[in-house]
Amino acid sequence: MKEYSKSKLNRVKRGQNRATYDVEKINSILDAGFIGYVSYVYQEQAITLPMAYGRKDDKIYLHGSQANRMLLTLLETGKISMTVMHLDALVLARSGLHHSVNYRSVTLFGSVKKITDDTEKDAALFCFMEHMMKGRWDGIRDMHKQELDRTLVVEMTIETASAKVRDVGVGDEPEDYNLDVWAGLIPIKQVAEFPIPDEGKPKGMEIPKHIMDYYEQHKQ
Amino acid sequence: MKEYSKSKLNRVKRGQNRATYDVEKINSILDAGFIGYVSYVYQEQAITLPMAYGRKDDKIYLHGSQANRMLLTLLETGKISMTVMHLDALVLARSGLHHSVNYRSVTLFGSVKKITDDTEKDAALFCFMEHMMKGRWDGIRDMHKQELDRTLVVEMTIETASAKVRDVGVGDEPEDYNLDVWAGLIPIKQVAEFPIPDEGKPKGMEIPKHIMDYYEQHKQ
Repeated sequence: MKEYSKSKLNRVKRGQNRATYDVEKINSILDAGFIGYVSYVYQEQAITLPMAYGRKDDKIYLHGSQANRMLLTLLETGKISMTVMHLDALVLARSGLHHSVNYRSVTLFGSVKKITDDTEKDAALFCFMEHMMKGRWDGIRDMHKQELDRTLVVEMTIETASAKVRDVGVGDEPEDYNLDVWAGLIPIKQVAEFPIPDEGKPKGMEIPKHIMDYYEQHKQ
Repeated sequence: MKEYSKSKLNRVKRGQNRATYDVEKINSILDAGFIGYVSYVYQEQAITLPMAYGRKDDKIYLHGSQANRMLLTLLETGKISMTVMHLDALVLARSGLHHSVNYRSVTLFGSVKKITDDTEKDAALFCFMEHMMKGRWDGIRDMHKQELDRTLVVEMTIETASAKVRDVGVGDEPEDYNLDVWAGLIPIKQVAEFPIPDEGKPKGMEIPKHIMDYYEQHKQ
């Protein structure tokens, strides 16, 4: 099992029994989503913004406009951190203290650089799109040169990371199990609903396979 | 319409047409979820962690263990920022550039203080629980004094905030509408599945009304 090294930065302090540094496990959590929370320091305060991402090996691709304040600030410092979480269940216990949620979360730490070469930028955007929806990139119209120029593409190299996973049932105090309180899980899931065609050409067009594949894999 | 004042901190720079500072709209986005992304500065780097929250008026309640590094760091600085986002749809355009997502997101900025008085702590935890699931608090076992002592409860006062909402269809370049590319939306939703009773007392117990109400409101 390949693991990320532990430092003060990524070592999980609370709930160490739920922590893992396993690269494969961390990648599987990253691949189950495409929205990450990236943070930066502005006026001495940490601010977080949601961003779509793509992953390939130990690289994470993000993009925005060339004037994106967060990305430009992170490029200046050269360092970046991103958090991804999937909510899996509400954990309803007999006492307030043991209420919890089941989840899979990852926090990544790494270096960040701007991609300037057009071929590399194109490859990064392909990775980004494939991560969101497999097969989408091939059908769409090619990017115009000026569109590529307007887009700021950055590459994060994951240097270290940690994940936390809770995937068990209710953990109440032994003396509470016979209280007259309903306890259990409510599973939570993010699901896709049936695709809605845009005005224009798609009306009457058959929904392509990559869209239906996505729907089938993500519907409830 | 009551609005948050705009400063360099909360003014939305990119996509201003999607921005709002409306207090009521911002509260409705906060109330539609209960997981926020809080960030802090550690070793000169911004780090984000997901946290459950409750809201009452302009107050946000968070809690953790008394040793929670992020909360303790934020209490030292006295300032806090939190981001909440709901993903509503994939927006699949005819060109890569116009791919997007529909979403509702909020970023809050404010001051933070520790709640030390037991009655206030109890009230904050009630608010927190009610925010996650209405009616849950009343049925559960009262908190033991030592449980309350182990819990760090913090109160954020929202001083300023901004929201960004995208809730429209595909926005392609005029000349692309007749390309042979399927375009449209795939709605995304977070849903609850049927409650699963824990071992012990709940077996054979009727599922209480507050749980079934939650399920009915959150199922697909």
